[in-house]
Amino acid sequence: MYLEKINSPEDIKKLTIDKLDILAGEIREFLVRSVSQTGGHLASNLGVVDLTIAMHYCFSCPRDKFVWDVGHQSYTHKILTGRKDEFNTLRKLDGLSGFPKTNESRYDSFNTGHSSTSIAAAIGLAKARDLMGHSYNVVSVIGDGAMTGGLAYEALNNVGRDHTKLIIILNDNQMSISENVGAMSKYLSELILTQKYMNAKSGIQKSLKNLPVGGEQIYNLLYKGKGTLKNAIMPENSMFEHLGIKYVGPIDGHDIKRMVNVLNKAKKLDIPVLIHVITKKGKGYEPAESLPSVYHGVGKFDAKIGVVPDYTKKETYSDVFGRKMLEIAANNKKVCAITAAMPSGTGLSKFANMFPKRFFDVGIAEEYAVTFAAGLAKGGFIPVFAVYSTFLQRSYDQILHDVCIQNLHVIFAIDRAGIVGDDGETHQGIYDISYLAHIPNLTVMAPKNKVEFERMLDYAVEFDGPVAIRYPRGEASEIMIAKCKHIEQGKAEYIYTGENIALVSYGAMMDEAADVYSSLMDMGYNPTLINARFASPMDTAMIEDLAENYKYIFTMEDNIYSGGFGALLSQKMCEYGINGNVIHNFAFPDMYVEHGKRDLLFDRYGLSAEKILNKITDIIGDKNND
Amino acid sequence: MYLEKINSPEDIKKLTIDKLDILAGEIREFLVRSVSQTGGHLASNLGVVDLTIAMHYCFSCPRDKFVWDVGHQSYTHKILTGRKDEFNTLRKLDGLSGFPKTNESRYDSFNTGHSSTSIAAAIGLAKARDLMGHSYNVVSVIGDGAMTGGLAYEALNNVGRDHTKLIIILNDNQMSISENVGAMSKYLSELILTQKYMNAKSGIQKSLKNLPVGGEQIYNLLYKGKGTLKNAIMPENSMFEHLGIKYVGPIDGHDIKRMVNVLNKAKKLDIPVLIHVITKKGKGYEPAESLPSVYHGVGKFDAKIGVVPDYTKKETYSDVFGRKMLEIAANNKKVCAITAAMPSGTGLSKFANMFPKRFFDVGIAEEYAVTFAAGLAKGGFIPVFAVYSTFLQRSYDQILHDVCIQNLHVIFAIDRAGIVGDDGETHQGIYDISYLAHIPNLTVMAPKNKVEFERMLDYAVEFDGPVAIRYPRGEASEIMIAKCKHIEQGKAEYIYTGENIALVSYGAMMDEAADVYSSLMDMGYNPTLINARFASPMDTAMIEDLAENYKYIFTMEDNIYSGGFGALLSQKMCEYGINGNVIHNFAFPDMYVEHGKRDLLFDRYGLSAEKILNKITDIIGDKNND
Repeated sequence: MYLEKINSPEDIKKLTIDKLDILAGEIREFLVRSVSQTGGHLASNLGVVDLTIAMHYCFSCPRDKFVWDVGHQSYTHKILTGRKDEFNTLRKLDGLSGFPKTNESRYDSFNTGHSSTSIAAAIGLAKARDLMGHSYNVVSVIGDGAMTGGLAYEALNNVGRDHTKLIIILNDNQMSISENVGAMSKYLSELILTQKYMNAKSGIQKSLKNLPVGGEQIYNLLYKGKGTLKNAIMPENSMFEHLGIKYVGPIDGHDIKRMVNVLNKAKKLDIPVLIHVITKKGKGYEPAESLPSVYHGVGKFDAKIGVVPDYTKKETYSDVFGRKMLEIAANNKKVCAITAAMPSGTGLSKFANMFPKRFFDVGIAEEYAVTFAAGLAKGGFIPVFAVYSTFLQRSYDQILHDVCIQNLHVIFAIDRAGIVGDDGETHQGIYDISYLAHIPNLTVMAPKNKVEFERMLDYAVEFDGPVAIRYPRGEASEIMIAKCKHIEQGKAEYIYTGENIALVSYGAMMDEAADVYSSLMDMGYNPTLINARFASPMDTAMIEDLAENYKYIFTMEDNIYSGGFGALLSQKMCEYGINGNVIHNFAFPDMYVEHGKRDLLFDRYGLSAEKILNKITDIIGDKNND
Repeated sequence: MYLEKINSPEDIKKLTIDKLDILAGEIREFLVRSVSQTGGHLASNLGVVDLTIAMHYCFSCPRDKFVWDVGHQSYTHKILTGRKDEFNTLRKLDGLSGFPKTNESRYDSFNTGHSSTSIAAAIGLAKARDLMGHSYNVVSVIGDGAMTGGLAYEALNNVGRDHTKLIIILNDNQMSISENVGAMSKYLSELILTQKYMNAKSGIQKSLKNLPVGGEQIYNLLYKGKGTLKNAIMPENSMFEHLGIKYVGPIDGHDIKRMVNVLNKAKKLDIPVLIHVITKKGKGYEPAESLPSVYHGVGKFDAKIGVVPDYTKKETYSDVFGRKMLEIAANNKKVCAITAAMPSGTGLSKFANMFPKRFFDVGIAEEYAVTFAAGLAKGGFIPVFAVYSTFLQRSYDQILHDVCIQNLHVIFAIDRAGIVGDDGETHQGIYDISYLAHIPNLTVMAPKNKVEFERMLDYAVEFDGPVAIRYPRGEASEIMIAKCKHIEQGKAEYIYTGENIALVSYGAMMDEAADVYSSLMDMGYNPTLINARFASPMDTAMIEDLAENYKYIFTMEDNIYSGGFGALLSQKMCEYGINGNVIHNFAFPDMYVEHGKRDLLFDRYGLSAEKILNKITDIIGDKNND
């Protein structure tokens, strides 16, 4: 057992190189055992065990800096940097994060979470190093998927021009090489094929040498010097070289010795180097190798059996979305669906099969997705961009500038709005109301339950203009499933009309709001319960009613406080004119919310029904005692 | 005179091809005469006169769709599509826009303004065309500068994979080919050089043919078939071809016949084609040819003399910024400056000369600029990203995710905040408070005058965390130049303390606020005048004071209403608890604000001192009469 002796990267260096494969096996065993108990990202981590070992064998963290693109593949790095004993707390509240966190370990040099940031951040670190006169190494590890993001290209375009010393490891896990990731992936595959071709060249060489006359010269012409056949098809003439970056590869990402060799050479170069490494997602754990996407992110499972589909699982909002989109697309030939590399996560897999011509997976390119959607809309279609709230942050400018200025009929189906839980602060969808609801022309809605969600999708397709609908991760709520009044632009739904106290719930908060409502009824109050539906435009009649007829107004949302639903309502209430009304906004505080289960975080930040009720009774009590 | 007979693109087709050069000359004359009288973009428009004529000669708008990247080079297109008589109203309030506008003309097929959107939008239009079964052409015209933006790459990555019929015209105006635009520009230059090399190949061919033996075979080996020398260095093996896009070029963009020939061929292809066209900015007007950057955007000038520098011009905020940055960088070796292709516009030209190692022009790549800044900050530096408010919209995710989660010391110097005027709705900087002030950890400030601006920059450098400072286009205000109390985190500056009425001004609105203050004093009121300074964090003591001691609270900002300063203040006021206070937020309405001079737009939208005063006296009067 080598793994148990490894408490810092220095301990790895004490092993002879031939022991590293054994260490890799131990780590894979540890990963499968540990992640099967806690849940987490498995396939991607199994894929980079050997690469990570090679990196730590060649470099010296924390002096040398690793920047892990996206970051969910950093488990082996965490194991090797003294955190293996904390893996039982992985992604739990106050436990180990599933992503690199500079405040978790000095071995983590840059926080990541969203795709395609690592080269840009690494260039910044490398430039800072050079300006300071230091000499440490900076290594970015980026997947082929992340190479579809424009930010990665902007970084390549910058690093190539000024020869900054930097190592970019392109972790190409072939399962992602499918047509739908775009031309770059296809190109990477060609590079791999080219190597195979070149491996066959010795055969050609022999034939040429056997020619009676001129064979040697022709061979030299073809394979030696600049501007030859070799350059025409070999990486020396690759896209990366065009951009001024030395290309090395492709290299077997499970051959530790070979990688150690290449990394030690790359260390000595004073220019940007891209090392193209081929890995297999799920490597070493057969179920994950054969079904890597199932093992991308997993819950708890039996490691001996593998992940078993849970057919008792209730429909999630993503399921509802996927099912409803089939119906909508069947009835309306103009409806298209767009995803940024999340066909399965957003529920669009069936749509992709049934309506392949109207389905677009654009790669991890949220900016493009939105401007492309604007073009489709201008061309007469109704594109629905299904995207996680946190990733739509990338498209703020395109939403405002390309879609909404022209008032185009683009629908944003915003999944994972609110708390996403385990992935934590980089992935929480708690900013979208703030970054969307102020955009002119954009309608921003949220449903209280699955039926209303379907109606809102119908509504958005019929409406002529940009519409965003946000809905949370996980099971679709069935609260008040029978209640869903006709949807009207900018109109709230009054669920129960009472007096003096108004509970104004936005979207998924209705589960909590209904609980609070019942408790208040039990306590003898007779509150009004409102399902706001629209953050923008806001219901002016509701504003007037609240201002005129309610002393206590409580808004509830799973978004941050500033710029959110409560903020918009408060401003409108002030504009209308309030006199003695007490307004309190329940929302996440203006901070980054850590990883942890939704209910625990709701409790911690005062958004559980119990905490909301306590606060409300405090306020009512206080004021009644005034 | 051919131009006077051209009222629609169909009229151009009536000319024989040899007349088109004459037409081009007339258009250039018209452009210089017209723009010298109204101001506008000149150099870029002079550069694409011939290209635009060739396009309209080969295609049939509005059936065929042109998407102009950025769009300020669309003047010739406007002239040729029936709008030449409106050029005297160019960029004036309610006059002709300086950008393509679908609601201005049916010949404009997509609104543009920000960089690098055209390929994405064009793919959307092309896909819509194919799905509809139509057959029109879609043409994107994109500059080499815009090719540094990641969105352009995301689009190339997508169009290359599925062979959508699309014509991309890469308008390469060589002046932009300078080292600072990045590796792609360098690469484009190499393509041009390659053509020159190939032009010399006939010489090589002759020599080979004169060889006694084998010359023919060697020639064929070198120049014919796949995988030959030709492919090694020729565009057939270009980056674009790697991405699945047919590359044609480089072509002289002032040779109309050649372009007509190439465009007519490209029309017949059913795949994506990139036509690399070389143009000269300012072409045909000598002053603009020799100083294209001076003639990029110009005010009124004497066409015979050319633009004469105005030395009587007062210092702009950009000037103040540039000057102050020299002082800061001289005193603090950690301060760096970053621009996204706007060294001159942001005032950083001198900085670039004096501190070249600490100056980074990253190309039109705002996303990269921010994540790169995060890396620099993590590496121990204090990067200042100088950027226009409207372009920083591109970086929303990077600000939140890469800078602010890690609470990194990055400074955002946000120029052109508020109304930019002539460029209109795509460029107004009236959203930044809404998209920034809710981001956790980010301090958002704005100065009332130039002295305070300098102090805020000092403050931001000393502060440890991300800070944004917004300031408007044009002359730096000298209002209350002697007044600038010590800057303290999250503290407003009370300018005059009165009673009952509070005027809370944010940033550049102080000019108007001070006028309103004086008028109210003249009318016998004794208002309090506050310079808010911070939108985030907001001054809680001020909130308490306003709630407790003022009946009327008027906020003023040159941002939209929702999510802006007034919204944040209203929410905090409600949270604190208000009772009978009247709050009114002066801000731009939640809509896109058209082009026009700042004072005219302020008047139109109720933000001039006069309009504000009228509204205030209305409110006070109404309420006093209650």
